[in-house]
Order: sequence, then structure tokens, then C-alpha cells
Amino acid sequence: QSSLTVYGVADAGLVLEHGGDSGAVQKIGSGVASSSRLGFKGREDLGGGTALTFVLENGYSIDTGATKQNGALFGRQALLCVSGEAGSFSIGRQYTPFYKALNNVADPFATGMAGNTQNIFDGTTRIDNTVEYITPRVAGFAADVQYGFGETAGDSSKSRSIGASGSYEQGALTVVLAHQQRDNPAGTAHSHNTMLAARYRFGAITGHTALARNRDLLGIESRDALLGMTAQFSATDKLLFSLIDHHDKSAAQQHARQAAIGYSHALSRRTDLYAAYGHIRNSNGALFRVGTAADSGSGTTGVNLGVRHVF
Amino acid sequence: QSSLTVYGVADAGLVLEHGGDSGAVQKIGSGVASSSRLGFKGREDLGGGTALTFVLENGYSIDTGATKQNGALFGRQALLCVSGEAGSFSIGRQYTPFYKALNNVADPFATGMAGNTQNIFDGTTRIDNTVEYITPRVAGFAADVQYGFGETAGDSSKSRSIGASGSYEQGALTVVLAHQQRDNPAGTAHSHNTMLAARYRFGAITGHTALARNRDLLGIESRDALLGMTAQFSATDKLLFSLIDHHDKSAAQQHARQAAIGYSHALSRRTDLYAAYGHIRNSNGALFRVGTAADSGSGTTGVNLGVRHVF
Amino acid sequence: QSSLTVYGVADAGLVLEHGGDSGAVQKIGSGVASSSRLGFKGREDLGGGTALTFVLENGYSIDTGATKQNGALFGRQALLCVSGEAGSFSIGRQYTPFYKALNNVADPFATGMAGNTQNIFDGTTRIDNTVEYITPRVAGFAADVQYGFGETAGDSSKSRSIGASGSYEQGALTVVLAHQQRDNPAGTAHSHNTMLAARYRFGAITGHTALARNRDLLGIESRDALLGMTAQFSATDKLLFSLIDHHDKSAAQQHARQAAIGYSHALSRRTDLYAAYGHIRNSNGALFRVGTAADSGSGTTGVNLGVRHVF
Repeated sequence: QSSLTVYGVADAGLVLEHGGDSGAVQKIGSGVASSSRLGFKGREDLGGGTALTFVLENGYSIDTGATKQNGALFGRQALLCVSGEAGSFSIGRQYTPFYKALNNVADPFATGMAGNTQNIFDGTTRIDNTVEYITPRVAGFAADVQYGFGETAGDSSKSRSIGASGSYEQGALTVVLAHQQRDNPAGTAHSHNTMLAARYRFGAITGHTALARNRDLLGIESRDALLGMTAQFSATDKLLFSLIDHHDKSAAQQHARQAAIGYSHALSRRTDLYAAYGHIRNSNGALFRVGTAADSGSGTTGVNLGVRHVF
Repeated sequence: QSSLTVYGVADAGLVLEHGGDSGAVQKIGSGVASSSRLGFKGREDLGGGTALTFVLENGYSIDTGATKQNGALFGRQALLCVSGEAGSFSIGRQYTPFYKALNNVADPFATGMAGNTQNIFDGTTRIDNTVEYITPRVAGFAADVQYGFGETAGDSSKSRSIGASGSYEQGALTVVLAHQQRDNPAGTAHSHNTMLAARYRFGAITGHTALARNRDLLGIESRDALLGMTAQFSATDKLLFSLIDHHDKSAAQQHARQAAIGYSHALSRRTDLYAAYGHIRNSNGALFRVGTAADSGSGTTGVNLGVRHVF
Repeated sequence: QSSLTVYGVADAGLVLEHGGDSGAVQKIGSGVASSSRLGFKGREDLGGGTALTFVLENGYSIDTGATKQNGALFGRQALLCVSGEAGSFSIGRQYTPFYKALNNVADPFATGMAGNTQNIFDGTTRIDNTVEYITPRVAGFAADVQYGFGETAGDSSKSRSIGASGSYEQGALTVVLAHQQRDNPAGTAHSHNTMLAARYRFGAITGHTALARNRDLLGIESRDALLGMTAQFSATDKLLFSLIDHHDKSAAQQHARQAAIGYSHALSRRTDLYAAYGHIRNSNGALFRVGTAADSGSGTTGVNLGVRHVF
């Protein structure tokens, strides 16, 4: 059997940004809580518990109709996957294990709204030319390894990327350790990010925490820490909150702190209204900005008010 | 409940253009009678008479496969809309109220074929970053207001656009007054267009008329007038006709007149064959050209022959 | 009645290339056996045996999500077609009759994998702005003529293209004679390609042969010859093999020979695993490279290993 599904997100809202270099700005934001997308996915049962799936996912801006991800048609995800009892093996343009840990476990905002963890946290979201293997979950443990080909003739280490994560889930607890590194095009240096993230559900309250260590291509080191909370007040209402601290270990000491609060009210299973406020205090000339799921922002304060529809 | 629909138009034909600077040309036209498009739209009933809808509509050229609208994937329309008894509120990249009046009421050719009113009439078709509110129709009256954010930090008037229309429908008569203005990126000047358009159905004959006053960013004023007719001969056959007069109020007096005739023969509810002829007489070096629904033309005479399929 | 179908191919694999100027390279290939694509097609029955169909087909890279065909959204195919007892007439961006003969009859690899005939054979795959007429098949014979408008004002011969083929099918035998020519933008010269191709099915073995004569815009002539075989071992397993000889008739004598072998194992009706090896021996500085269905390669040896899913 084979199937094809067309799916997506249409998310639009008002975004107010203050504290930027050129003054305040009011925008129509596209993909504020979740990036707007249109995808095509399919699944074929190959027998013996094995299935083939594919995902082709476009990112677009609902305010202009333009394609995101530098114009790549399926710039969000493009992959072919064979999965079965032995795990899943996939190939294409894919999320990094590091990003999945950040989005799924660490961030109460799921990298959306003014509270987007990626306003501060370093790391790459997607990598081209990847192969990835995810183990089945055994006794709560699972692992995810990903290799991104550099595709440079004569030297396979140039532009290469490597990612991996190990996770443990037991009842209310999820813990994940994720790592990612990328070689530069010359093959002379690589950046890396390592994060330990955890999430625990105390009834209606979910606590989130993450600690990441980063080193960029110039060897500059930094540390990011997050403490967050999701409070599900009712079947339809949810409060999100997070505090993030960025510590720059270089002589410049360009530290930053972000505090953010968000609220989501579900109108249906597929549609919610949301509001959020985020503020960043930059130290010593640090240039962190409050963005949204889909867009980096221009200000140190961001206010969001919008509607998200999942189809 | 939720639904997703894939829809569109595939329109292709022969386009002959004469009277251009470089001589005559024969082309395959894409989107001659109606611009070729592929759209994804959905609707979710939110209860209490309220519904959420979204539209993502791509414009493409069937002769080359290329994306229209400067490459924007959903450059025709990209919007999220909440509608109910109190009217509809939408957000995204949307048609201007001015364009909707031109297309739906004024132009017998519905801005298509060689008779496209936009060959002569000024005005913007779509605006990015808009919010729009349309009232319910009460006692025949309805209003439509639209605001396009300029999204310029520090000065919200830069690149801003404002549009509005009021309409009256009673039996065979439709009258609409539409206005549109846009500020330039520096926020130092704005253009505007105001149009009164009417349509009246006399049995199988529909009469159309429109009068527009325009002022561009340099302050140059002009006036456009249209007189048109749609004659539905039978269930499948329709004749279209229009005369347009452009009066340039500047010292250059670059006036123009267009006459156009078109014919459509329906092969089915979804498919028709069409033919059209349009001619423009430019005065004092005016540079108006006969185009089609999707393309501006190169000549002062245009001939179309094609097929349009709506899916 | 009317219908819309979303269809496509997701094909990804490992591609190893050796013998290129910059050394060996390992890549994730997208569209190795068949180019990855996503299409929308529809059909409307117009009565009397006549039907209208349209095809809008995108080509994408599964390794990056990017659009192929220089960014054209429907760069693989975009066409509207009316077909009936008298044949089919279509308009849009279409395959050349020459390419269809190469892909469907001559090449056991169907222009895919390391054995892609187009690594060596000259000719254009698709043409913009075309009208095409294909006759019904009568007593085994059919013809296909295509005209591509140059769309240059003042001189319709500039950038014009003309293609045609005649074919004969009887039982196990298919023979096709195809021709193609293109005028340059200045209208001062034209290239042309003429090919005779044949395919014969001896039970589980199919033999392929083709001979082409080419002249480029500079008047340089060459000849390409192919001998190939498809061996269907079982319902799921197939071996492909071809030898190609390129003879350069210019003084430079830049000849080339390609040998390629491929294997396909079907996992289901829609999915197969494939492997292929191709090698080119260039003479006197010829620069032919081993590519895949979707990409030209960098080496004179290519190895493929991948999975293809048709949906």
C-alpha cells in the first residue's frame, strides 16, 4: 500500500520589535509560533515490518508568499527513509540531532514565538547531503547518528558535518545528550556544540532545562543555559516561560540574557491563538535579537500576537 | 472538520503582437485569458458560524514552467482568514480592494486576454504584509479596508499602503467605489488611485463602466475611463467588448485609447476556447502595450487564441 | 469528469566519482536512477473521445531540497494537451521527440544511473514555448512533430527549434527515427541531431541500439553509437548494460567510449534498490564525465548505490 499526504502550517500574526538599531518596527510575521510550511509525504509498507517514507517540505512566508531557506523549494526537509525493527535509515536534507534535542526537549517554545531558544543558542538546524541512522528505543535508550557529506573532490573532510545524540525516556522524564560539529570548506577548522537537555512532566507542569557548550570556527568558546516551563492550564490553554543565559568565554565577554513568556489558546485541535513577549539584555556589545520561529528579529524586545493553523 | 483542496488554472495559447519597437512577434502565451496558477486552500469550521481558511496560490508560466511574481512561490495569494457573521479578517499577501473592483466589476475581460483593463488602468494588484477586514453585506452595502505594513524600522509610514472600497449590490446592479494609496520607501510621497465602477445585467447583456483618477509619486495626474459589455449568446458562448480612454493631465499629454473584443466558447464547465483582439492608439509618445492576463505585451496590437482549463 | 493527481519520484543514493580533475568525491546523489520530481496532473473528459490533460512537473534535489532546471518551478514539464482519435496536440514546455527516442527506446538505463546515455549523446531534453502534434499509431506507424517558438520580435527564426520523429512498433520490435534542430539567438546558425534507434525484445532479454549524427553551432560534426541490453532475470531483478562510442569528426579527434552496467532489485511495485558502475575513456582531451539521471558528474568513473520510490 502507498499513500500521499499534503500537510502544512499557516501561521501569521503581528510582530512588534523594539530596541533595534534603526528604531521600532511593526511587522506582519509569517511563522511566528511555528514556521509556515507546505509538505508532501508518503509511506509505503514494504512488508515484514519495513516501511519506506519520504518527506518533501517547503517553507514559505505567508506575508509575501516567498520561499524561505534561501529559495530551496523543499528547504525544510527533503528525505527518503527506510524504517523497521532495526531502526530507521534516512538520506537527504535533514534536521540535525542537536536541533531536534533543542526543539523537542529543551525549548518550551519549541523554537517558536519571541521565546525561540535559537535567539540565543548556537547550532545548525538542517544539513544537506546527510545520511542518518536512528536506533529503536530499547529500555528507554535510543541513539541518533548523522553524517553530512562535504562533497568536495579530493578531500572528504572539507565541509563535512557530524551529529549524534543519545536519549533516555522513562515515564515523565526525557534526557538527551546531543553533539554536532562542522568542518569549514577549507577543512582547516571545525565548530562544535554539545548540549545536555532534560524535560520532566509534573502533572500539568512540564519543566525544561538545557546546558550547551559551543566552540566556533575561530576557537571562541561559549556556554548557553536554559530553564523553562510549560503550564497546561486547561485542555485549551497553555503558558510557556523560559530564561536563557549566554556566557561568552572570550575576552570580549559579550554575554546575554533572555526572558520570555508566551500563551496559547486552542480554538480547535488544529488552530490556536497565541501571544508572546521576549526580552534580551545584551552585555558589552553583544548583538542577540528577539526573533520568531521563522525570522530573526531586529529588536531586543519582541511582542507577538497571532494565529496558527495546522493542516 | 478540516479540508484541503488543490486547485488551479492551466491556460495556454498563441499570442501575436504587432506594432512593438522591435517588430512583430509570435509567442506561446501562458495565462492569456486567466493567469496559470496552482493553489492549496483549506477550511476549518471553528463552530458558532466562524471558519478559518487559508489560501496559498502559486503563479506559473506554462510555456517555461517558471514561477511568476518575481519568483515568489505563492506570489498570487498567501493568506490566513477568519470569517464569521461579523465579517472576515485576513492577513498575508493579498489583492488590493482597488484590483478586486477592477477585476470583478469593471472589466468584462476580468483583467485577461488582449482586452485586459490593466493594459491601461493604473493601480497595484497585490500587496505584501497586509491585514484586511471585509464587512458582511447589509441591505446591499459592504465595505473592505486593507492596511499594508511598510515594515520599516523607525518610521511606519515608509512603504505603507492603504486600500478601501465600498460596494452596493441590488439585483442586477453592482456599484463599487475603490481607493488605494502607497507611500514611497522614503516616506516623502505617495501615489493614489480612486475608481468608481459599475456593472448592470440586462438579461443576457451585461454593461460595465469605470472611471478612475490617478496621481503617481511625482504628482502627475491622469484619468482612465472604461465602457464595456459582456454578451452571453448561449450557455456556452460569450462575447466580450471594451473601450478604454486614458487622459494624461501632464504637459506631455501622453494619452491612449484601447479597443478590444473577445470571444469564449465553453467546451465544458471547466474548459473553454477563447480568441481576442486588442488595439491601443498611443498619443504623443505614450508607451501602453497590449498584454494578456499574465504578461505585459510588446505591441500595440495583440491577437490571442487559446484554451483555458480550470481545475 | 475531472481529476487531479499528485505524483512523483523520490530517488536518493550514494554516488562515488573517480578520475575527475580535482580528485575523487563521495556524494549523496538525488535522482540517480530517475530524477526526483513532484508533479500535478489532471484529466477532463470532453466527450466524443476527446480529453484535456495537463501536466505540471517539478524537478528537485532530495539532497538539498533545491529546485532543478535553473529554478523553474515546473521545469521538467508544463503543458496542456487535447487528445482524441485524431491524435494529441499539446502546448507548453515539453520533451523533444529526440529525447523521448533516446530515453524510451535507445537507452537501457532510460537516461539514468552511471550508464545515462546523455553522458555521451548530444541533444536537448526539453524546449520552452512549444506546440507539438502526435499522430495516432496506424498499422504500427506514428509521427511526432514539435515546433518551439523563438519569441524574438522581428525575426521568428531566431532561437527557434524544430523536432520530429517517426516510429514503428510491431510485436517485440520498436524503431524510431528522430531529428532535432535549434537556431542560435542571432539566427545565423543552427545545430542538429539525427538518430535512428531500435529496441527488440527476445523473451527476457531486450536489445537496444542507436546511431546518431550531430552537428553543433560551429559546424563541428560527430557520431554517437550505442549497443545495450536489458536482462529481466526475475519479476524483481533486472540487469542493464550498454556500450557507447563517440566519434569526433573534427581535427581534434576528441573521441570517447563508455561502458556501463547496472542492476535493479524491486522491493515492491513502487520501490527498487539499484547499483551501477560506469566508466568513460576519453581520447585526445575529450571531457565527457559519468553522471546520473539528474546530475552531470565530475569523474570518468562513477559508482551508484541507492533507492528509488515512485509515488
